[in-house]
Order: sequence, then structure tokens, then C-alpha cells
Amino acid sequence: MNEFFTVRTPAEAWSLLLHHLQSASPQPTRRNRRLPTASALDQILAEALFSPQDLPDFVRATVDGYAVNAADTYGASPGLPAFLQIKGEVPMGQASGFVLGLGEAALVHTGGMLPSGANAVVMIEQTQLVDQQSVEVMKAVAVGENVVQIGEDIRRGAPVLTPGRRLRPQEIGALLALGITTVTVAAPPRVALISTGDEVVSPEQMPQPGQVRDINSYTLAALTQRAGGEPLLYGIVPDERAQLAAVAAQAHADADIVVLSAGSSVSYRDMSVEVIADLGEPGVLAHGLSVRPGKPTIVAVCNGKPVFGLPGNPVSAMVIFDLLVAPTIQHLLGADSVPARHVSARLARNLASTSGREDYVQVRLAEQDGELWATPVLGKSNLIYTLVHADGVVKVPLAANGIHSGEWVTVSLY
Amino acid sequence: MNEFFTVRTPAEAWSLLLHHLQSASPQPTRRNRRLPTASALDQILAEALFSPQDLPDFVRATVDGYAVNAADTYGASPGLPAFLQIKGEVPMGQASGFVLGLGEAALVHTGGMLPSGANAVVMIEQTQLVDQQSVEVMKAVAVGENVVQIGEDIRRGAPVLTPGRRLRPQEIGALLALGITTVTVAAPPRVALISTGDEVVSPEQMPQPGQVRDINSYTLAALTQRAGGEPLLYGIVPDERAQLAAVAAQAHADADIVVLSAGSSVSYRDMSVEVIADLGEPGVLAHGLSVRPGKPTIVAVCNGKPVFGLPGNPVSAMVIFDLLVAPTIQHLLGADSVPARHVSARLARNLASTSGREDYVQVRLAEQDGELWATPVLGKSNLIYTLVHADGVVKVPLAANGIHSGEWVTVSLY
Repeated sequence: MNEFFTVRTPAEAWSLLLHHLQSASPQPTRRNRRLPTASALDQILAEALFSPQDLPDFVRATVDGYAVNAADTYGASPGLPAFLQIKGEVPMGQASGFVLGLGEAALVHTGGMLPSGANAVVMIEQTQLVDQQSVEVMKAVAVGENVVQIGEDIRRGAPVLTPGRRLRPQEIGALLALGITTVTVAAPPRVALISTGDEVVSPEQMPQPGQVRDINSYTLAALTQRAGGEPLLYGIVPDERAQLAAVAAQAHADADIVVLSAGSSVSYRDMSVEVIADLGEPGVLAHGLSVRPGKPTIVAVCNGKPVFGLPGNPVSAMVIFDLLVAPTIQHLLGADSVPARHVSARLARNLASTSGREDYVQVRLAEQDGELWATPVLGKSNLIYTLVHADGVVKVPLAANGIHSGEWVTVSLY
Repeated sequence: MNEFFTVRTPAEAWSLLLHHLQSASPQPTRRNRRLPTASALDQILAEALFSPQDLPDFVRATVDGYAVNAADTYGASPGLPAFLQIKGEVPMGQASGFVLGLGEAALVHTGGMLPSGANAVVMIEQTQLVDQQSVEVMKAVAVGENVVQIGEDIRRGAPVLTPGRRLRPQEIGALLALGITTVTVAAPPRVALISTGDEVVSPEQMPQPGQVRDINSYTLAALTQRAGGEPLLYGIVPDERAQLAAVAAQAHADADIVVLSAGSSVSYRDMSVEVIADLGEPGVLAHGLSVRPGKPTIVAVCNGKPVFGLPGNPVSAMVIFDLLVAPTIQHLLGADSVPARHVSARLARNLASTSGREDYVQVRLAEQDGELWATPVLGKSNLIYTLVHADGVVKVPLAANGIHSGEWVTVSLY
């Protein structure tokens, strides 16, 4: 256990975590589930899908007009229109039932099927009806003009989506267009949340002097949901080693990820690092992160499952969750991208920092003179209402001594 | 009905819509519901909340150390430490049960309650235990140092959150910290979705020649969910006026917003504008928008309820939904902000446009040399797979003739 008391940068902790997850033996099994495509919004696809058909599987008009053989219109102009016989009308949702010959045209509607023999559509605005049987075309069209070809949207057999793709509204529509009405997606990783501390009581309770209500179980459950995980609440455990060890072992057996939001006292932190180390090999990878807030963080992999000890302070707990736990959930989901939630803004005040430590600073956003400005939220970093007043967070990188007022920064939005 | 065939800019259509919603009489009733706070993630608050208590309601230590009377430490240094008697230890989650006198100190833990008589905490690292009864303090602390004062997070009676606030993870934690375990939130507006067209069949069906599967019911349902609404699917209605009128009337009676994704042929568009006009006063506000794709859009307010006729083309339908229907859902929710989902990127190719029309262009994003670049997705604007290949959309403003390669643009993310 020579990794104890090893302060690491967040990047080092993350790459150690990934390394130990990827080299775990046996590999944690990824659980999948089958869902109706229409109910799979924001799920992560867990199978490779290929198109069972050409889309469209017939030549479609993209305008209202006359289906023609393009060659019949060459040279046509308002002064010298091409004169075509009307063969008939193609009703929406049906084939024409006739073949278009040379010198013939058929009325088609947007989205309708071209009759066999036609290879272009003249827009209705560029035609003039002579009588019920004939029409003048006042503009030439090229082959393929105003039509969607067979397979132009997607070809039969082509890859549609690959595993890891997050299903947005358009993916749902695109799959249903091909008749793919069920999909295999990654089941949400189960994230066990354990709040600890003799001073912590449930929100329904009236705290006695010295007691506070549990915040972390609920903020972390909400963040888990947002990241695509399923929160499992293990309640509040007092500062008693045997009890914490028993609850942690149960959570480690039940869940895919275990998150303790630990009491912050030194004695408590020592206890939780020992409890985590006992959950399995290789155990604790980082004990302390070079980050503010959030330094007293524990990162571990125990028998193939990630385990985190987050600081009890709710602001620190949220910062570290976003930094490490949310990416772990996305990793277990097999997601190949994370929805971007950041904007660029100019910093409204100097931000001092210490080189060798990442700082995460809460900011409010406001537009002024067409530019977005980020103003640091004042207040101690352990106050939950600091977060309520913040629109997002700015990272001051490890190597920086601070950021000057007026510089552009990237704000990760809440 | 002189508003028929009135092409408007998207901004004009939106302000007309808002005007008619706000002046509707009787005002559409906003429905609320009561939820457990812990289950209210991303809901819109529909009540003003005030703090029932000071938070914290006792003076808390922010470090492990000794609670002291600050005056006892003035002038203390490693060379000349202050010598204090240890009165006892304050257990976590409890009051001390004693009063600290002058010259006395009490061991406290992070988050613990200061005993009466103490007004600061010396960090444990800046003390040295002499024996069981006495401790040396090697650094002076100011009054209030290393403590959170009563009400420092939020004061009793202070406004906590105002109606319209979207509840993020931190708002949920902040309410539960105050014991506010249930909240009144806006009920999701019911959005009726009607797909139309003789050529459209349900995704489960095998299309016959000339038929295509329904896409819009499902992409628009997913977009409705994302915007905070509740989709109600009314299925596929054939191009038959009496049937469409009956379904639209039922949808208008049931729902808060009605969305037809209309067939695109001229005759069909005429039919849907008439059906919408018959749903109530003032009726159609815009028939045609100066936007591409999405020109054949109908915007209406009928007896206080917004009604939209979207183009049948799935790309246009999605663009117009994001432009007008999603903001309408947010308006009915009373939401005071919309989650930002955009990034800045440089355009990788020239984009031509026509002044007097807003263009929405699908783009892919890729990072190169530390900068984000947006590359327009090629392909006809009515192909659903154009959207699948896109990460977001770039707006070419009304007055612009295009955007040059290399210019910075704002990409709205999908």
C-alpha cells in the first residue's frame, strides 16, 4: 500500500484509473439492455447497426411539379417552351402504375415517387398547363434535378451508427426511418452513494445543534443521473469504521461505482482511505489531488470497480464528481463523446492561483456589449449557495499562476 | 384572415406569437405540480422560496484544530507561542456542553460546532500539544478565521429561489439543506404531435412503393422531451381535410401546444393552413418564414394556444422546432433561462446565403491546432442522415450574404 498519501494531479489520477480499469481481470462486464428506439433518447448505443435498405428506396420528387425525361426539356425557355403530353398524376404514397415515354410528363407532389422512365422533375412554377392533356415546360432540367435518388440518404448495408454513439433526436428518427424499432444500449452504471458523518442527518429531520442535513447524497444523485448513471442511495453512515466498512462492502458488491462523500476531519479521512483500501486490489491510486477545492479526494480501483472518496464539503464534492466520476460513468457506458456544455467568456476579475495546483472557480455569466463575461462568485468555497449563484466553473490550469482580467476562459456550464 | 400568405422573419413570427399569447383572454392557465425536491432535477420552479432558517444555524469550523478566543492568540508565533488550557473536545454533530473561557481552547473537527465563547479556530498544523491539558498556538488568528458564521451560507427569511428557476443539482442540494423537501414546479406543457401525409406509414410497417416511414413524430417527441414538454402522439393522418380537422380539433382541446408536421405539397399546405385557421382566434400569424430550410412554416395562436405547421421534411421540421417550438415550451413553463448549448468555432468553408433570409447550416465540429472548426455537412437539406452526421447548426443571419471561411461562428449543439 505504498500508494497511500500520494498526492497526484487530476490528469495523473484519471490516467491511473483508466489504466487499472482497462487492465482489470476479469474485465468488468458491461451490461446492455434492449429498448424501443423511440424511448432511447440520450442512451448510448451498444451495437453496430447497418442499413437494412436503401433510403429512400424509390426516386422521390423534392418539389411539386412534372416528372419528365430530362432530355425532353433541353433548350426549353419561356420563349420556346417544350411541349409535353400529360400521362397522368402520381398519387402520394403510391407507384404510378404507368411508364413515362418520350415526350410525356406526369404530375408529382413533393415526396412523391417518380414514374418509371422519368429522371427529373420540373418545378410547377416553371410550367404552364395548356389543357388537361398537355403542359409547356419553360426551363430545362438536368438528369436528377429536383429528385432524391435511391439510397441517397443511406445505402443498404452501409454502417448506420457505431457502438458508443449517444442517441439524439435525429438518430432516433434516422433509425426509425429504416424500420429499426428496437436498439441495444448500455445499461446505466449503478453508482452507490454513501454519505458519512456523525453530524449529518436526513433532509426530513430537524437538525439538533451541531447537525446539518445531508446535501451530497442528493447533489451527487442528480449529477449521476445527468451523466447517464443510476444512483443508488446508501444513506448516512456514522463515523464508525466497522459500520462504514460493512456499508462500503455491500455497495461495492451491488454497484458498478462506489462514491463515499467522506467526513472531512483528518481522522475520518484516514478511516475512509483504509476502508476503501480493504475493498480490493489494487486499491488506492491517489490520496489527495492537486486541485482546489477538492484536495482530500481518494481515487481507487478495487477488484475492477472504481471507488471514490469525495470531500464532505458539497462544493468540493461537486467539482470532483464532474472532474472524475462523471467521466468514469461515461467510460463504463462506452460513450464515445460527452455532450459539450461549455462557453467562452472573458474574465471580469484577476484570478490568483498557485502553480502546481488546478483551481476551479465558480462564476456567473453576463453579456455586456455583445461579449460574455465571467465574474467569480465570492464566498467561501464550502457554501452550497456559492453554487446556486454560479452559472459554471472556470479551471485555472496546473501550470498557471492565475488568469488576468479580460482574458478569455472556457466556462463549463452547470 | 388577411394574415394568410404572410411571410415573416423568424424574429417577427416569435414576437407576434408572444404578443398573442400574452394578450390572450382568458390567459392559458399554467399547471403546476408538487414534487419531492430530490426528484425535481431540471424542473422549473413555480413558487418563490424563502429560507426557513439560518444556514448554518451554528458557527462551524472549516478546519481541524482548536476553537479559541482570537484575542488569546494575538502575537503568537513559533518562537513565542500562546499557551492555552484544553477545555475539551467538541464531538461531531453535537454542541460542546461547555463555555470556553479566556485562555482556553477546545479541539474541534472540520464541520463541527464551536463552543460558546470561541470566535475562531487555529488549524491543528499550527499548534503543538504540550500535554493532555494544554496546547501551544504558534500563529495568531483573527476573529472569524476558519469558521463559517451563522447564516453565512443563507440567512433566515432571505429569498432562496424565484419562480422560473431551473433546478440543477446544486439547487436540489441547497433546498434540501434547508429542509425544503417538496417543491411546486411547472407541469410539462403537453405538446400534441400530428404527422400527416398519404405516403407516411408507421415505423413498424414495411413501406410499399411510394411510402416512407414516419420520422417526425419521433424526432419531435424527443425534442419536446428535451425542451421540458410532454409529447402526445396523435399518429399519422392522411391528406384528407375532414380527418385532419377532426384530429387537430381534438389535439387542440387536449394539449397546450399543437404541432402538425405537414405534407409539403402546395395543396396540402393550403389544407393545413385552413385547418389551423379554423381552430380559433386570432389564427394564423405567419404563413411562410424567411428561413432556409423551413420556409413553408405556419405559426398560429388559436384561442390562446400556440399551433405550428412544420414542414414535412425532417430537417426543416427539426430546425423550426428548435427555432420556435422549444422556446414556446420554455415560455409556457415560465423558465427564466434556457440551458446554453452552443460553442464558438471557425468556419472551414465559405457559406453563401441570400440577404433577407436566415440560413441554418448543419456542421460537424473538429479540433485542429487547438481551435474548433465547423465544417458544413454536404447533402440535400431534406436528408435525415445529414442531421446524423452533424454536431450542430450555424445560423447565417438575415442581413448577411454569407460567411467567409475562417470567420468565427456560434454553433448551436444538438
